[in-house]
Amino acid sequence: MNRRDSDAYRAKKQFYDRVLTVYGRKPVLEALQVPGINIHRLHLAESNKRAPILDEITAIAERNGAEIRHHNRAALSRISKNSKQDQGVAVDLLCPRFRTLSEFLEQGIQDSGDILALDGITNPQNLGMIIRSACAGSIGAILLPGKGGAQIDPLVIKASAGTVFRAPIIRLDGGLENALEQLNKVGYCITGLSSHSQQTLSECAPGKNVFVLGNETHGVSDGVNRLCQARVKIPMNNGVESLNVAVTAALIAFRNAL
Amino acid sequence: MNRRDSDAYRAKKQFYDRVLTVYGRKPVLEALQVPGINIHRLHLAESNKRAPILDEITAIAERNGAEIRHHNRAALSRISKNSKQDQGVAVDLLCPRFRTLSEFLEQGIQDSGDILALDGITNPQNLGMIIRSACAGSIGAILLPGKGGAQIDPLVIKASAGTVFRAPIIRLDGGLENALEQLNKVGYCITGLSSHSQQTLSECAPGKNVFVLGNETHGVSDGVNRLCQARVKIPMNNGVESLNVAVTAALIAFRNAL
Repeated sequence: MNRRDSDAYRAKKQFYDRVLTVYGRKPVLEALQVPGINIHRLHLAESNKRAPILDEITAIAERNGAEIRHHNRAALSRISKNSKQDQGVAVDLLCPRFRTLSEFLEQGIQDSGDILALDGITNPQNLGMIIRSACAGSIGAILLPGKGGAQIDPLVIKASAGTVFRAPIIRLDGGLENALEQLNKVGYCITGLSSHSQQTLSECAPGKNVFVLGNETHGVSDGVNRLCQARVKIPMNNGVESLNVAVTAALIAFRNAL
Repeated sequence: MNRRDSDAYRAKKQFYDRVLTVYGRKPVLEALQVPGINIHRLHLAESNKRAPILDEITAIAERNGAEIRHHNRAALSRISKNSKQDQGVAVDLLCPRFRTLSEFLEQGIQDSGDILALDGITNPQNLGMIIRSACAGSIGAILLPGKGGAQIDPLVIKASAGTVFRAPIIRLDGGLENALEQLNKVGYCITGLSSHSQQTLSECAPGKNVFVLGNETHGVSDGVNRLCQARVKIPMNNGVESLNVAVTAALIAFRNAL
């Protein structure tokens, strides 16, 4: 590749790293109705029969100057990656704050704020609530592994109250452990939560921490646990031993605003 | 009634005000397995066929010295108040921190802490999470109206991670408005949450506030809204306009611990 091709490739990759594909008629309509949403391309199955909701979806896409493409059923399935639930509709949305990890690292980490690392969050409600709270509070990035937990699907989008489209999310191709090692190398402190710790969350200086949030039942995985350099507790009353993971995320995200 | 009868009546009423009846085989077993649970009485339908889970429930009740009563189906339905889902089993649990509003007011309010008033929370997950966070954080009482919202049922108990049995809950017979008026008379500030407010939650001195949490879709009801004497906001970034109601409850409950 010559220099110009390489730049073009890079720009194209950066663009597509920010694209989130939503499928299903009601989820697509609801996503298109989120204020400020950036619609790149609407995909429709040629086999779709006429329906009011499709007219509404198409009208919003046209009004926003989005490209509209028609596909045969097989091609649409490849785009939605969920032929059972796409109902002949998918839309590519541009999420300006989505990043790859390497892009995030290249941009430099000064002032980016604390990071939430999701280690096997399986409940879509929890994932959506975490994204909503992180976006509203002070979180620099959410590390979302591509495997082993809930992915951004219609349930997650709903629970996020539409905030997922403007949330600072790093979608990982590889596993979480590798990402944590890279973040540690550039100065982040990998921090777990433990009710047995002496140090409290409030004693943890903000800015260069990666807080690891573990699976709802099994907690943080062994491999990730080994990478934790610090552990903090959230002091609890009445013998309560743990909080819901989305509540924990919110307390981290808002700890300097309360 | 003479004095002794009146005292006895009062003691008995106080006792039953702290009783929570749980029904259904799995929910009853899970409740009995909560550490420190106080089992008053186990109710079984005479029509129950033998089943391992019933043996397990009975064994735990016996081990804890709980009274075991057998009823015909109609009588059990009156106890569970849910014949469709009780599966022939109900248990009366003693929740030491449950109160009536008049009892709470009689005890004096010094040092009792902020109160959460639930105005039409309908989602059982949210109610359970609110109870869990309130119990773990610093909340003096949760005002739970008997109508117009989710009640303490198996889903709520599960979402509360068993904390409901030790949470400071005031179950209201009457409506929320009347309760708020009574609390206002003894010095509580009825406080709503509003993103339009100038005052932030962190500026609100802890201790004598009733924070009103409204319905997930419609917010605080008009009648309750009129009773609010103050409104505070939780500052949010990235144009996010609201938080999940259970997250809001957690931020209130932990605002002095972070």
